[in-house]
Amino acid sequence: MPPKATEVVLTVGRAPWSALRMPAADVVSDTAATVRPVSAEARAAARDRLDRMTKPRGSLGRVEDLAVALAGIARACPPPLPEPAAVAVFAGDHGVHAQGVTPWPQEVTAQMVANFLAGGAVVNAFARQVGASVTVVDVGVRTPLDAHPDLRHRRVADGTADLTAGPAMSRDQARRAVEVGIAVARELVAEGHGCLVTGDMGIANTTAAAALICAFTGADPAVATGRGTGIDDATLARKTAAVRRAVDRHRPDPADPLGAVAAVGGLEHAALAGFVLGGAAAGVPVLLDGVNAGAAALVAAALAPDAVGYCLAGHVSAEPGHALALAALGIIPLLDLGMRLGEGTGALLALPVVAGAARALQDVATFDAAGVADKTGD
Amino acid sequence: MPPKATEVVLTVGRAPWSALRMPAADVVSDTAATVRPVSAEARAAARDRLDRMTKPRGSLGRVEDLAVALAGIARACPPPLPEPAAVAVFAGDHGVHAQGVTPWPQEVTAQMVANFLAGGAVVNAFARQVGASVTVVDVGVRTPLDAHPDLRHRRVADGTADLTAGPAMSRDQARRAVEVGIAVARELVAEGHGCLVTGDMGIANTTAAAALICAFTGADPAVATGRGTGIDDATLARKTAAVRRAVDRHRPDPADPLGAVAAVGGLEHAALAGFVLGGAAAGVPVLLDGVNAGAAALVAAALAPDAVGYCLAGHVSAEPGHALALAALGIIPLLDLGMRLGEGTGALLALPVVAGAARALQDVATFDAAGVADKTGD
Repeated sequence: MPPKATEVVLTVGRAPWSALRMPAADVVSDTAATVRPVSAEARAAARDRLDRMTKPRGSLGRVEDLAVALAGIARACPPPLPEPAAVAVFAGDHGVHAQGVTPWPQEVTAQMVANFLAGGAVVNAFARQVGASVTVVDVGVRTPLDAHPDLRHRRVADGTADLTAGPAMSRDQARRAVEVGIAVARELVAEGHGCLVTGDMGIANTTAAAALICAFTGADPAVATGRGTGIDDATLARKTAAVRRAVDRHRPDPADPLGAVAAVGGLEHAALAGFVLGGAAAGVPVLLDGVNAGAAALVAAALAPDAVGYCLAGHVSAEPGHALALAALGIIPLLDLGMRLGEGTGALLALPVVAGAARALQDVATFDAAGVADKTGD
Repeated sequence: MPPKATEVVLTVGRAPWSALRMPAADVVSDTAATVRPVSAEARAAARDRLDRMTKPRGSLGRVEDLAVALAGIARACPPPLPEPAAVAVFAGDHGVHAQGVTPWPQEVTAQMVANFLAGGAVVNAFARQVGASVTVVDVGVRTPLDAHPDLRHRRVADGTADLTAGPAMSRDQARRAVEVGIAVARELVAEGHGCLVTGDMGIANTTAAAALICAFTGADPAVATGRGTGIDDATLARKTAAVRRAVDRHRPDPADPLGAVAAVGGLEHAALAGFVLGGAAAGVPVLLDGVNAGAAALVAAALAPDAVGYCLAGHVSAEPGHALALAALGIIPLLDLGMRLGEGTGALLALPVVAGAARALQDVATFDAAGVADKTGD
């Protein structure tokens, strides 16, 4: 179990890391404690309705499982449509960049944040296509960022430290980053969003994701570490070695998720873990994107095992650690298109499948109601 | 090569099978001849643009291939959005029903047509969700159907004959059914639709689909025949035996696609083959649904090999013949969700992925335009 917290930072205004601190309840533990198991009754009602709908039983395949999951999450059959959906892109930088794990300059994190805010990135195009909003959260970018109405300034630190040389962040920073994610999830649900979609941006963040996945699944770094943006063999060797040094040095303990994410994670992974917890606590589906979301969901699951029931996996990315994370979580991804961009893009392409599953439970007639004969002899 | 046709039926009004016949050009061959190869120039322009967009090269995986395909089809980069999309559900009945290949009464075909027209089926729910229209085409239902504004009465015959006892239909009927599909595609494109989505309804139609797939791929009936709506072992054995008898009896020749579909196909398969041809001739993407669409696309490809370039596969169904058909066509499906409903449902869930691919080419900024640094050393 994570140790009791003694204080919480109030993340108000543009500079939360300098805000007033005061003794407070442990927001992370309290949020984790409010996550209820999904409703078995609503799941059973959805299965029953699916079997009476005008289609052969089971003929929607995994879309039926998805419909059942949505009913369980909403504690209602039919469940509401997962609309409007909000993707929150948590952005952070990584001290491990110094180890040569990627050919991209670290400044690209901030440049891509500007691109998100200008509407020019793939996440914006896909969000427009599926009717989702895009919120960008600076939880730990290294470069100063200008104010923008769609940018939430919740920076906990100017990037992490190099996880091969020491902990990526302090336990307090990790906790505050988780709290940022919880707060953003609460805010988006309070604004009326019916589905939360994870997004992430951070040059070198797949290195930290691989380390987290090794920590929580026991996978070897050579298996869990991938080519991220498409790195060459020499860079992959450096990246894998960095993950191995981090795991060997810190021996992160899955039973201490805050300690593990502090040691080898990123600020956006901690925030995404909080985003999952916050969504689960609010009773809305959380649609996970790629390997960074998968790594963060492992942290969230360690904090609150019932949170997994609120998670849907939009896709499985080309990054090998992602499939390991999803397998450990017991979540089957919806799409498998070889995507490896992040930002929330894979999850957004799956959103209409999720909505379709809910819509089917809402709209499709039963055999009785439609006057359609059921098959004989069953 | 198919033999020259000497007449064509004018499919006007509610009773095309009794309409005026007159000597005419061969609509099927003429349409096939107008299908142009997709544009290599537009494909190359799309690849080039994708490589300059603000994302790591190749990081959208197969969505990039999809974007390239859409550009080639539209002969333009960026291609237009595949909107609005129209799903055409071609409905027909099958004489092979008498062989006990399914536990569903044959009347369900007409009952489901009524359900489609009332908006109560899964295809309606998914179409609503993704913004597509639903058109129902009676190309060969056995039961009389009432008039309805969304029902196109193009019945060529009151269902097919039993393909185990003789040809499922005459060559002339097959040709007329293909012409129905061509005409519906033309009409939908003329109405302004930017994407055609295949749909089908016909109790026992996966038996005919399996026979077509055996004919065009050389697969053994035991490999190509599946459980369709979820039939039991005894029914599967009867279904497989029926497919084997049909293939053995007719020895359908892939070089004579009209003859093959007449011998072992269904009226909706012939119409779907025409729908593919018509869409390809009009230069719009044709999003294929399940095993019936896959079987029909084999017929279309035999009539006009370049038509394959206009086909996208929305998903791969649980029916084993579908993967065989797609492999023979060289088309990689987008979704793999274990669906086996038909109606167009699997294709509709993939439509937002298709739209997202086009949207990305339209909307995403390039590195230069966004002021984002490209990676170093590449």
